[in-house]
Amino acid sequence: MPKNGTQKSLDRAQEIYLLAAQLFVERGVESTSLSHIANALNITKAALYYYFESKQELLYRIVELGLDNVKNEVLDPAREISDAEERLEFIIFNHARLAAEGNHAVIIVSHEMNSLSFTQREAILKRRREYFEFVRDTLVELQTQAKLRDVDLTTATFTLFGMILWLSRWYRPGGKLSVEQVCRDVCEMALKGLLRN
Amino acid sequence: MPKNGTQKSLDRAQEIYLLAAQLFVERGVESTSLSHIANALNITKAALYYYFESKQELLYRIVELGLDNVKNEVLDPAREISDAEERLEFIIFNHARLAAEGNHAVIIVSHEMNSLSFTQREAILKRRREYFEFVRDTLVELQTQAKLRDVDLTTATFTLFGMILWLSRWYRPGGKLSVEQVCRDVCEMALKGLLRN
Repeated sequence: MPKNGTQKSLDRAQEIYLLAAQLFVERGVESTSLSHIANALNITKAALYYYFESKQELLYRIVELGLDNVKNEVLDPAREISDAEERLEFIIFNHARLAAEGNHAVIIVSHEMNSLSFTQREAILKRRREYFEFVRDTLVELQTQAKLRDVDLTTATFTLFGMILWLSRWYRPGGKLSVEQVCRDVCEMALKGLLRN
Repeated sequence: MPKNGTQKSLDRAQEIYLLAAQLFVERGVESTSLSHIANALNITKAALYYYFESKQELLYRIVELGLDNVKNEVLDPAREISDAEERLEFIIFNHARLAAEGNHAVIIVSHEMNSLSFTQREAILKRRREYFEFVRDTLVELQTQAKLRDVDLTTATFTLFGMILWLSRWYRPGGKLSVEQVCRDVCEMALKGLLRN
């Protein structure tokens, strides 16, 4: 966290995380130094240290940012939806929307955790597992209601994430396909692939 | 290519590529030197140069190896299948099989092309586009036959690849789920998601 909690400082921190993520994806995490990042932001390296203590902490903040987005825009609101089918549709559409229109670099960097400490990695894996289990539980509920096709629940959950997260690799906003359209299509494919007629 | 074309030398080259891919995924491409790779193989760095001239060439060979596998085990045999629905099922199942039981590191490294030259990147993108177009054309054919759901063909093709390639991120052979079972389930989800009843 930035050393003071004002909104302005938080916005600036977020700006730094997004740009750093972009550089990490373009140049690789290992060959991007804090000096590169400071140069790209046109600030001093000392100014960067106001926001985090090391490149490792910066990387960890980026991964956390991605997880916070999923928590705020997908997981927490989805918990309020009691109908499992409706909940699943909400999860797929909104996670796809995040993956399509959000910062692609954050998602890509989030899967390159080699530079993190054991404790940081464990903290991230715990949060990911929590989300994974939530989605899997929704599929369990649909299975109990005899609405799910005959597929293994773990395979189904991971494959769903593959459909969604791959958006960050190929989709570019502002092109021929709108975010809305692309998320509708991913939703359609996923729901028809998972649910019985 | 190794400097002589004997089978033994090819096998040894392949062995080196697989191990190097593994190290690249574990440590990151940039922070893995040829010395690290030579150490892991218990050979001299000079012996490594028998197989390739630079780390860049090594990385390129790894990506090519992944593309060759797809060409030999998916693309070429699929070209022989005249029925579009049968062809699509063959593509999904066999590409999923490669992604599940093949070398996961090769697939992961294949999407980190920053260290490659412009010419190398272009050559790889050309081969990927060729495969992409082949799969997309299969979907066009199914659309013409009114068998495809109402989804954008580009979104559908990329999403299909997401389902398949994500296997390299999560599936571990030798666990509870067999390769056969996991590929059947991915196939089921993908076909039901793409095709009308």
